[in-house]
Amino acid sequence: MLRDRTLRLHYGSRMEAVCVLGTQISADVYGAAPAGAVSFSVKHTAGVQVEVVTDDQSQVAPANGGKQWPLDHRTILKLSMNKASTEANDDKVTVNYYGENGGPPIDQAGVFLTGIGISLDVDADRDGVVEKNNPRKGTWTWGPDGHGAILLVNCDKDNPFISGLDCDDEKIFSKEDLRDMSRMILRTEGPPRLPAGYEMVLYVPMSDSDKVGVFYVENPFFGQRYIHVLGRRKLYHVVKYTGGSAELEFFVEGLCFPDDTFPGLVSINISLLESLTEEIPRAPIFTDTVVFRVAPWIMTPNTLAPVNVFVCSVKDNYLFLKEVKSLVSKANCNLKVCYGYMNRGDRWMQDEIEFGYIHAPHKCFPVVLDSPRDGGLKNFPIKEILGPDFGYVTREPLFEVVTSLDSFGNLEVSPPVTVNGKAYPLGRILIGSSFPTSAGRRMTKVVRDFLYAQQVQSPVELYSDWLTVGHVDEFVTFVPLPDKKQFRMLMASTLACYKLFREKQKEGHGEATMFKGYSGTDTKRVTINKVLSNELMVQENQYVQRCIDWNRDILKKELGLTEKDIIDLPALFKIDKMGKAMAYFPNMVNMIVLSRDLGIPKPFGPIIEGDCCLEAHVRSLLEPLGLMCSFIDDISSYHKMLGEVHCGTNVHRKPFSFKWWHVIP
Amino acid sequence: MLRDRTLRLHYGSRMEAVCVLGTQISADVYGAAPAGAVSFSVKHTAGVQVEVVTDDQSQVAPANGGKQWPLDHRTILKLSMNKASTEANDDKVTVNYYGENGGPPIDQAGVFLTGIGISLDVDADRDGVVEKNNPRKGTWTWGPDGHGAILLVNCDKDNPFISGLDCDDEKIFSKEDLRDMSRMILRTEGPPRLPAGYEMVLYVPMSDSDKVGVFYVENPFFGQRYIHVLGRRKLYHVVKYTGGSAELEFFVEGLCFPDDTFPGLVSINISLLESLTEEIPRAPIFTDTVVFRVAPWIMTPNTLAPVNVFVCSVKDNYLFLKEVKSLVSKANCNLKVCYGYMNRGDRWMQDEIEFGYIHAPHKCFPVVLDSPRDGGLKNFPIKEILGPDFGYVTREPLFEVVTSLDSFGNLEVSPPVTVNGKAYPLGRILIGSSFPTSAGRRMTKVVRDFLYAQQVQSPVELYSDWLTVGHVDEFVTFVPLPDKKQFRMLMASTLACYKLFREKQKEGHGEATMFKGYSGTDTKRVTINKVLSNELMVQENQYVQRCIDWNRDILKKELGLTEKDIIDLPALFKIDKMGKAMAYFPNMVNMIVLSRDLGIPKPFGPIIEGDCCLEAHVRSLLEPLGLMCSFIDDISSYHKMLGEVHCGTNVHRKPFSFKWWHVIP
Repeated sequence: MLRDRTLRLHYGSRMEAVCVLGTQISADVYGAAPAGAVSFSVKHTAGVQVEVVTDDQSQVAPANGGKQWPLDHRTILKLSMNKASTEANDDKVTVNYYGENGGPPIDQAGVFLTGIGISLDVDADRDGVVEKNNPRKGTWTWGPDGHGAILLVNCDKDNPFISGLDCDDEKIFSKEDLRDMSRMILRTEGPPRLPAGYEMVLYVPMSDSDKVGVFYVENPFFGQRYIHVLGRRKLYHVVKYTGGSAELEFFVEGLCFPDDTFPGLVSINISLLESLTEEIPRAPIFTDTVVFRVAPWIMTPNTLAPVNVFVCSVKDNYLFLKEVKSLVSKANCNLKVCYGYMNRGDRWMQDEIEFGYIHAPHKCFPVVLDSPRDGGLKNFPIKEILGPDFGYVTREPLFEVVTSLDSFGNLEVSPPVTVNGKAYPLGRILIGSSFPTSAGRRMTKVVRDFLYAQQVQSPVELYSDWLTVGHVDEFVTFVPLPDKKQFRMLMASTLACYKLFREKQKEGHGEATMFKGYSGTDTKRVTINKVLSNELMVQENQYVQRCIDWNRDILKKELGLTEKDIIDLPALFKIDKMGKAMAYFPNMVNMIVLSRDLGIPKPFGPIIEGDCCLEAHVRSLLEPLGLMCSFIDDISSYHKMLGEVHCGTNVHRKPFSFKWWHVIP
Repeated sequence: MLRDRTLRLHYGSRMEAVCVLGTQISADVYGAAPAGAVSFSVKHTAGVQVEVVTDDQSQVAPANGGKQWPLDHRTILKLSMNKASTEANDDKVTVNYYGENGGPPIDQAGVFLTGIGISLDVDADRDGVVEKNNPRKGTWTWGPDGHGAILLVNCDKDNPFISGLDCDDEKIFSKEDLRDMSRMILRTEGPPRLPAGYEMVLYVPMSDSDKVGVFYVENPFFGQRYIHVLGRRKLYHVVKYTGGSAELEFFVEGLCFPDDTFPGLVSINISLLESLTEEIPRAPIFTDTVVFRVAPWIMTPNTLAPVNVFVCSVKDNYLFLKEVKSLVSKANCNLKVCYGYMNRGDRWMQDEIEFGYIHAPHKCFPVVLDSPRDGGLKNFPIKEILGPDFGYVTREPLFEVVTSLDSFGNLEVSPPVTVNGKAYPLGRILIGSSFPTSAGRRMTKVVRDFLYAQQVQSPVELYSDWLTVGHVDEFVTFVPLPDKKQFRMLMASTLACYKLFREKQKEGHGEATMFKGYSGTDTKRVTINKVLSNELMVQENQYVQRCIDWNRDILKKELGLTEKDIIDLPALFKIDKMGKAMAYFPNMVNMIVLSRDLGIPKPFGPIIEGDCCLEAHVRSLLEPLGLMCSFIDDISSYHKMLGEVHCGTNVHRKPFSFKWWHVIP
């Protein structure tokens, strides 16, 4: 923003100029001086303040012009006004030039001034209300003491009759659509008409025109109309100047989320243009700028309260559905079943979508991130989730091949953590990749870039490529607790399983049998003794434990956890033909977490005195913490297809009460 | 970098592990405990340090194993070594487990340890020498107290027989080529052989593989060979472990400059991989990382001493050449003439290229930036400037149309400035655009992105689209001074010209004639009176002054200048059919600056008492400052084609002595 502008006095021609309140005009008194002039005096009307400045010295010029100054090429007059004019040119500054031997002035130069107030206003202090000319509206900073306005991507669909998102079109159908946008007010003050040759232009930089849309509200009092004035293919808009003290109301919507090529900041400018004569181009003499940050997409960890639980109904999962239903009613949230016509036989609800939300001081709503996986559930998010105040966003790679690591079972988020002093009050995103050294599978770049660009949940890359399916939810999850830490991290542990089995063996239960009562398993009996004596299995599970430990070490470091924050859940894996691991019995860590109620894959462990010793062990670890364990039989409907309860469900949760703009990334 | 790693003790199998010096192994004592164990003790050899850690309490374990601890699932052993082993597995830790009623141990677990030192080393303290294991080598910070290694883009051509740049191929032909690269040393210490199942891998992240190249020096002492080990299509390299204390030498080159999609940082990693058995994949147990920043391309302002002056020889500029030649010899630097076979009739040496340089603690050389303009001089920079220790870089837009604003007469740089407290010790880049509000001509995005991405000369966008040619060098330049400010900014001023002419008129020289003695002008006489009485010309030049003032205000603000830092040089313009401005008489601000010697376009102003009053006026402004003015006749050879002396020349200057990495962007 230019706040000081140069004005050249001329002699002869009667000069007129506009002075925007809060700015300064530097008039060079020397340039207009006639030959032979050696000193000058300044006369001015009450509405103008005049200073005579030479280098660093400055003196106030009395209105009456009583004082004389020597003429010096470094001398300039600083003119300013602090009240808008009621008539054009109703203020005036006159300079008198004097020759060698004093006497009457040998010549004059002067300018007629019109004072105009212009302020483009937004909610820069983030209290939900647009304030007046906030001095910090032109910049954006993070943190509790930060400032700068916030914009939502208008990615929901308030009107059932349009196809696509609200931000895809340049129309407004309802007040609901407006409520997703940020208010912006242009305040002007001045004479009934602008002096000839001036006009006001609202504009966005070329680079922002595909990221922001602006609507103007015509006659706000009766029969409003909303006119799209800035956005795609509309770089600038000439604003009608109405005179007196006026407020023009605008509404601003975001068109796209932060990404690797878009840090998230957009600016909108208002300029006052001046033209000398017709054929000569116009030049801006004043510009006011406001900056918005587009709100990031934020994920919701298990520690947040559930709202809706989504699950697919397929031909063979009737019993599973029933058990999930009773769990959901216990946790009193809602069950949303996706039926065959929509899931087309795809049962992996966890993998197609991830629920999150966007938040601004004036509005907050959930947004679903659609995975590039695109299985049978491909159309589900657009067709059934997108709607009024429920947004949608997706990222699809152009060239890269989509792998199993692009499914969102491989995308989780930790609860809030603090890592040696650095706070992550919205937690950290967890995604699975391959080892840095190896050229294995990895989540596609466009999705990773999107997640990193949101900034407020700084992602951690784990190593999940050692698994056949390759999802982080196969070895780690989080459960809420009422204590200081607020949560525990649960991890699959083959070691914990061997340890438990050995203890049971020592206690004389070596012949206890696994997979009992599980309909349709292969008939051969699996006992604790058989498992412990299988040398290959021991070695494979040592390797699996190392892979888990590798992640465990990263998680301890990146989430600032100690051993007492971690609970190891017994698990066993077998290695497939490609050298990747898959769960040997239902993998309990792959659970659904609904507040204190846990839906855990029923492990079908060795039965000792009528009890499954794996279930008993897990209960003994979790129930003392006030968690309720329900074991759900998913063996035939999910486990056999290499997934469990978590893979088959998805949870839409309440947003954080914490405001993301208070984060310091 | 993982500095703490989890190790699982097993009973039964005799365990072996490698401990990298400076890291810690967390062994869980509980996991390996036999059923019924309630306490344990630890015995270890002298080479290992062992701590028993439970939650936040930690105790040193005596080597003799004299002490017993209660068994707790939260308890872990922290193992570390501070000396490399001379033999594999020559250190050992043994854990004894005890049952309820004391007595002899009921079981044991243990691990044999091999201590190995691994450090990837670079010049992270920027003194030109590779130090030993700098703790800050893995991060990069700006400023005089900053740290982190520096890389040059190997964009020169040390070998006359290859085509293209040194960084385009994966070969090293000479020591000279090596000297452009940064040294990197891998230091290892340990037993003659690595224990079975371990290997060391050097690698770069996928995203960096097209930005950096690494060469390995084979038998450094006799008959060296340089092997390309990392870079395009080479993501990792298995390093030969030689045993004892060894130093492997590598050389690193940058492949591309910072840009809008590349912030300039690259990292190189060394990992120690461990494998359990053949068919099971390997996992890294230790990683060391170094970070380099690719040195930015830096422009050289007029205040730096000239080395070579480049100018084209064309059919009609013989006299001009002669005058430039004598100026250059006065300023004792070298004249480099580009002849017709190479310039193909293109005389605009300023517009095709911009000279700059790159700088690292170990090396500094000039680099020419080639404009997308591509006139007759298209091949000149590659064919005649690129060479040993003279680099080359270019940016070409894929789709955008190239305009006159892409010529490098429109790319200048200010001397070092400080703007209310913020220092720009390498000055600020100046580029001409159109008004923010208008959709006029603008420098192509790829070049602007490149300039902004260099970070150390934060660009300022001016408004030059009001000119027919549209270059910033048509209205602003800088001259060196010995005073505190070190420079003055010179600007074209139509106002200064009118003021001078009016004074001369008053003094009775109204009939003084312009363009005298200038061969081949239109015959009609142009006098001061004629100029002053031309009302259209007055108005057009008022508009021009406003355009210049708009830039003047930006420059004052962005370079922190006051009136006394600015000198206005008389100039007049006329407006062409498209409403754009071109110089009416030779535009003096478009000068060549060689230290104190200025080559100024001869203005052919009104002759008063045998003297050109414009020349006299400019001398009176500049010569008291100790500057020498030579007025060069460019009217027929350049001015008539809308350019002047500066447009027809180009200067390769000495680099700054100031180190760019001391900047805080």
